[in-house]
Amino acid sequence: MTELGNKTMRKDGRRRDQLRPIKVTRNFIKYAEGSVLMEMGDTKVICTASVEEKVPSFLKDKGQGWVTAEYAMLPRATHDRSPREAVKGKQGGRTLEIQRLVGRSLRAVLDMTQLGERTIWIDCDVIQADGGTRTASITGAFIALADACAVLKKKDLIKQRPMLDYLAAVSVGKIGGRAMVDLAYDEDSAAEVDLNLVMTGSGRFVEIQGTAERYPFDRKDLDEFMSLGWQAIEQLVNLQKNLIGKLD
Amino acid sequence: MTELGNKTMRKDGRRRDQLRPIKVTRNFIKYAEGSVLMEMGDTKVICTASVEEKVPSFLKDKGQGWVTAEYAMLPRATHDRSPREAVKGKQGGRTLEIQRLVGRSLRAVLDMTQLGERTIWIDCDVIQADGGTRTASITGAFIALADACAVLKKKDLIKQRPMLDYLAAVSVGKIGGRAMVDLAYDEDSAAEVDLNLVMTGSGRFVEIQGTAERYPFDRKDLDEFMSLGWQAIEQLVNLQKNLIGKLD
Amino acid sequence: MTELGNKTMRKDGRRRDQLRPIKVTRNFIKYAEGSVLMEMGDTKVICTASVEEKVPSFLKDKGQGWVTAEYAMLPRATHDRSPREAVKGKQGGRTLEIQRLVGRSLRAVLDMTQLGERTIWIDCDVIQADGGTRTASITGAFIALADACAVLKKKDLIKQRPMLDYLAAVSVGKIGGRAMVDLAYDEDSAAEVDLNLVMTGSGRFVEIQGTAERYPFDRKDLDEFMSLGWQAIEQLVNLQKNLIGKLD
Amino acid sequence: MTELGNKTMRKDGRRRDQLRPIKVTRNFIKYAEGSVLMEMGDTKVICTASVEEKVPSFLKDKGQGWVTAEYAMLPRATHDRSPREAVKGKQGGRTLEIQRLVGRSLRAVLDMTQLGERTIWIDCDVIQADGGTRTASITGAFIALADACAVLKKKDLIKQRPMLDYLAAVSVGKIGGRAMVDLAYDEDSAAEVDLNLVMTGSGRFVEIQGTAERYPFDRKDLDEFMSLGWQAIEQLVNLQKNLIGKLD
Amino acid sequence: MTELGNKTMRKDGRRRDQLRPIKVTRNFIKYAEGSVLMEMGDTKVICTASVEEKVPSFLKDKGQGWVTAEYAMLPRATHDRSPREAVKGKQGGRTLEIQRLVGRSLRAVLDMTQLGERTIWIDCDVIQADGGTRTASITGAFIALADACAVLKKKDLIKQRPMLDYLAAVSVGKIGGRAMVDLAYDEDSAAEVDLNLVMTGSGRFVEIQGTAERYPFDRKDLDEFMSLGWQAIEQLVNLQKNLIGKLD
Amino acid sequence: MTELGNKTMRKDGRRRDQLRPIKVTRNFIKYAEGSVLMEMGDTKVICTASVEEKVPSFLKDKGQGWVTAEYAMLPRATHDRSPREAVKGKQGGRTLEIQRLVGRSLRAVLDMTQLGERTIWIDCDVIQADGGTRTASITGAFIALADACAVLKKKDLIKQRPMLDYLAAVSVGKIGGRAMVDLAYDEDSAAEVDLNLVMTGSGRFVEIQGTAERYPFDRKDLDEFMSLGWQAIEQLVNLQKNLIGKLD
Repeated sequence: MTELGNKTMRKDGRRRDQLRPIKVTRNFIKYAEGSVLMEMGDTKVICTASVEEKVPSFLKDKGQGWVTAEYAMLPRATHDRSPREAVKGKQGGRTLEIQRLVGRSLRAVLDMTQLGERTIWIDCDVIQADGGTRTASITGAFIALADACAVLKKKDLIKQRPMLDYLAAVSVGKIGGRAMVDLAYDEDSAAEVDLNLVMTGSGRFVEIQGTAERYPFDRKDLDEFMSLGWQAIEQLVNLQKNLIGKLD
Repeated sequence: MTELGNKTMRKDGRRRDQLRPIKVTRNFIKYAEGSVLMEMGDTKVICTASVEEKVPSFLKDKGQGWVTAEYAMLPRATHDRSPREAVKGKQGGRTLEIQRLVGRSLRAVLDMTQLGERTIWIDCDVIQADGGTRTASITGAFIALADACAVLKKKDLIKQRPMLDYLAAVSVGKIGGRAMVDLAYDEDSAAEVDLNLVMTGSGRFVEIQGTAERYPFDRKDLDEFMSLGWQAIEQLVNLQKNLIGKLD
Repeated sequence: MTELGNKTMRKDGRRRDQLRPIKVTRNFIKYAEGSVLMEMGDTKVICTASVEEKVPSFLKDKGQGWVTAEYAMLPRATHDRSPREAVKGKQGGRTLEIQRLVGRSLRAVLDMTQLGERTIWIDCDVIQADGGTRTASITGAFIALADACAVLKKKDLIKQRPMLDYLAAVSVGKIGGRAMVDLAYDEDSAAEVDLNLVMTGSGRFVEIQGTAERYPFDRKDLDEFMSLGWQAIEQLVNLQKNLIGKLD
Repeated sequence: MTELGNKTMRKDGRRRDQLRPIKVTRNFIKYAEGSVLMEMGDTKVICTASVEEKVPSFLKDKGQGWVTAEYAMLPRATHDRSPREAVKGKQGGRTLEIQRLVGRSLRAVLDMTQLGERTIWIDCDVIQADGGTRTASITGAFIALADACAVLKKKDLIKQRPMLDYLAAVSVGKIGGRAMVDLAYDEDSAAEVDLNLVMTGSGRFVEIQGTAERYPFDRKDLDEFMSLGWQAIEQLVNLQKNLIGKLD
Repeated sequence: MTELGNKTMRKDGRRRDQLRPIKVTRNFIKYAEGSVLMEMGDTKVICTASVEEKVPSFLKDKGQGWVTAEYAMLPRATHDRSPREAVKGKQGGRTLEIQRLVGRSLRAVLDMTQLGERTIWIDCDVIQADGGTRTASITGAFIALADACAVLKKKDLIKQRPMLDYLAAVSVGKIGGRAMVDLAYDEDSAAEVDLNLVMTGSGRFVEIQGTAERYPFDRKDLDEFMSLGWQAIEQLVNLQKNLIGKLD
Repeated sequence: MTELGNKTMRKDGRRRDQLRPIKVTRNFIKYAEGSVLMEMGDTKVICTASVEEKVPSFLKDKGQGWVTAEYAMLPRATHDRSPREAVKGKQGGRTLEIQRLVGRSLRAVLDMTQLGERTIWIDCDVIQADGGTRTASITGAFIALADACAVLKKKDLIKQRPMLDYLAAVSVGKIGGRAMVDLAYDEDSAAEVDLNLVMTGSGRFVEIQGTAERYPFDRKDLDEFMSLGWQAIEQLVNLQKNLIGKLD
């Protein structure tokens, strides 16, 4: 971002409120019930939804289902190669934090009773990372989940898709004193504030995670983040509506 | 919380905007440069600040310091005994998430250059948990950190305490449709929304982490959470001012 | 210990056969069936006894109970901060050795048949360490265990407390050629011999663990350790009798 | 494979000596010095080659480089979802075996002295598995490695690409008594013998790994495997020649 | 190997096709159903076969048994002391590769249905390593397995030993351009090609694992390896026949 | 032990004060500087002493050496096969306790300054266990250590063997009310008291570890244990004197 004038203000020429180009490739992995290659600019995440016909032990015989998520990055998804977590022998704090966020977000818009006694495993594997991998994971995983539910419905295992609303996510940041959405990696590194929003199709909040990376922010900033965030999420939700249709 | 009338609406008789009784015992552990037993109601956390005269390798020769935090609970800090993480062989996702939050929050109000090439280790060990352990950890850790810095100043290792502002945290939740602050465990379990706020003495946001546990929330809810949260944090900051004095 | 004359011979003015000031705070943690803050001088250990209504698999359907113990230190319980075992991913040899000792000692004075098919988990968490943490753990854990059994009795789950005798422990050491009891950390570091005694209220041995840290010791030394140790343990047992009453 | 006549003998219509359709997408990941999406039928592997400007400690100051490989599968690369190794906390025996094979094979055709004191990390991440993932990994990794070396050459860090020969791999199996190449997953599961061949462009063996899954095989079988294997590898090498050009 | 003339060409005076002195001590460990101290020159491996009266969960109620193997080396089995895997907290890739090979090889000559619903655990513990530990493990483990089966037969738990054929293994290598069998450690380190052969008593292949350590090898080499290998294995099989008798 | 009369009172016909047959095979492993197969009855331990020309970091530049020990059992050293610690991913509490005891005991009779800046690694690997593995480990390890030091002396790396005294260990137990030495496994399982003694050649104590397995013991018992133990250790020390000669 060389200057911060009104028009072309971002490195890649985007406006402050503009999402990067989005590409959704469904049925990307042939075995998974739902699978999406989610691309937001140079960020690329493979999101799969896998159905398992049992629930975790704490839900046994409760007449409801479960959704859980796992997240990972290929070692060379990033500018410098990062060590493989399977080699280190454990998932790092950032990984755990993200996959907990993804799972919690999806569960917030699902009617677990309608899902029945089964688990849907969401896997978000980042193959190329250019900022916003957790938000791309959520937006893409929702589509994969919808597709997996469509398969269940087709097989008469559920009566209708158990989604209560659409769900999408976007990052908002403040850089050089100006708020903007959908930060690429270079922008994210320079951000004074980094905030991730997960919202429903009807504009309600599921998750807000805001961090003052350098300078604490005030109420006015927060209001601006919310507005910018929602208009971006609205676009993502519209895309979801086009792809997966009306939630029945 | 048996009823939700205007006056005595919470199980323990508190108003919606009322903090639990707070008790801060400084110099609780004789070896640590700073140490605090932080009590908010029945939540009790030992917060220590330990000075180490070196920095992590990624900060070598950069002329600045570092603050990092670790968090744990005693096995019987909770209603049912929970397995010891050292026995399981790894820290869980919740633990990692909280200790990352504590460290990040404290770093946001510290001038690392003034701290010099040293690390301050913050340890937050919950000995009794009744909700709000992460926010009590942050509020208490800030005091322990200030005390450790006072020791450094007394030894002429730093010229002044490197804090840029006070820092405190509180939880806000929505239960039965009503927002309230500083949730005890029973309230937390019943909350529809759970939001943790970390703010500076001047009322700016350092961290916002809000989660719709059951029902997504809207902008009006968020505004109320912010207002309730800040008036509570203001009280905690005033307490800090009385205890550790003016930031020099 | 600046001099070794007959009267005031120890750094803190104690006689060779004198225990440090002891303080027992019962019901220290509200959730645990039994819980004690055990202080011997500057050594402070939280001992909790937690009842679990099942037994380990090797005791299934044998009509008896079990007692097991875990031990840990807070990172800054010691002069220098020591790394957290949950972060290192495993409990160290010293930790395992101590918790095996605590569990074995308590089991030696318990009638497991009277306890019924349940497990009592003993947790000894050292919050400040100034020598003798394992012996303070045993003496304190016995009280917590007695209190937990009193709860079981009150609930009519057992007929009587299943303790066969009182149980306490003390360290004995030889420093500068002279035997003394209840070593503080500075004394322990200087000791030529370090011996831990666990004995019953009737003066019988449950555990003897003696180590020649520098110079091997002879039979006469051993006799002196036994005598010094027992008179100290007798005081601890008397304290236990006052606190928990007659074993029924 | 419904029948084993002379013409259309395999489930997918292939002849016994016929490779599946191959697709190589170079520069698949923008950050890596070399990166290839290697597809053999439905088997898809992302192979990246990452340059690190240092060598493992055992090669310090020996004036030579190193190549090492890591291998993994996405959880839903397979028909049923398999648990993530980072969650299990360790890489399985199969994973370690394959990545050792990939690294050893590549090193066999590299002049480490020409490579200089740097390490090239090969990552083979299977995003969809339909048999032959280890052989596709080797064939694809060789191309990624060549591309990474071309980058080094362009930057004048090496004088020429240090490859001594081309390198490709293929599986050969015996099913229903008949030998065939490049087994898909269904074929692999039914195979009586499973043999993996890694060979150079000049037709010499780098690795032979043959396993009698059900029935031990004899010398005549082995001869047939070698012939079938080499004619398949020759095609893969020709493809490599077209893509990466003459080895200089 | 100082010279490569026709007669005495190896360091220890052996011909190219000559095995090292072999010594088999049966019933070496008194508790194990089958146990062998297998010595090939200075390579010494304790092989035990332990019967467990249950099968792994994936074989439950399938009316068949299982054989699985574990392999390890004592820390000082090698010229320099190598770290203990139990201390490192995991088995290395080489260990896993070898134990998978041992288990797979033994299973290839066993009729699992005749074995009944039980598992035989093979443990190969190298107490002194001078090359060829994996092949000595296989040859020795086969004898221990036969002895354990004889015990089962004696107890009328099985009708006959479930071995379909004898099984032995040997290493073949190429050093200084000449092929030779049963490489000692010094030879192995100098080998251009290292190949391990596992064959049945009737001369069929169970496993071939060949690696070009330095220079890729051709078809003619391979033929020579096979011939040398088989004449060596034939001797080992004859030894097995003498020891364990006819397979009934 | 079927009866407890005066003459033949133990299962294997031994008197109460009688050691099992002892066999020491030196130079058992060709690579180790010192190595012993130590047999006491059916208990067999391989003890090796390995010299490493560096010290742990906490001893750097202190002009002294170090001795450390590791202990393990082969899986089938015991009546039932026990899981391999390398597979479980960690050493158990019993293992750590024993290896700490072995290392501490040996260090107590060594002049670390004379040893010079080097570490001697002691490995005690039990290949067959019939009670008393820890005491056999100590007695055997002392011989291996002496032999390793003899090698150092021969190489002129040290002027004399740095042992201050001989060192041996024995178990003493009380069974059916009678004390006896050197318990075999069956006896150990039945023991009311289990006590391990480590003593020097001059009859001084290095370690006493006594445990009341069932019934606490008194001072008179202890006296008897000490007497029985020392006369047994005296025999072991005499054996050591014959084998390794006068300590110079």
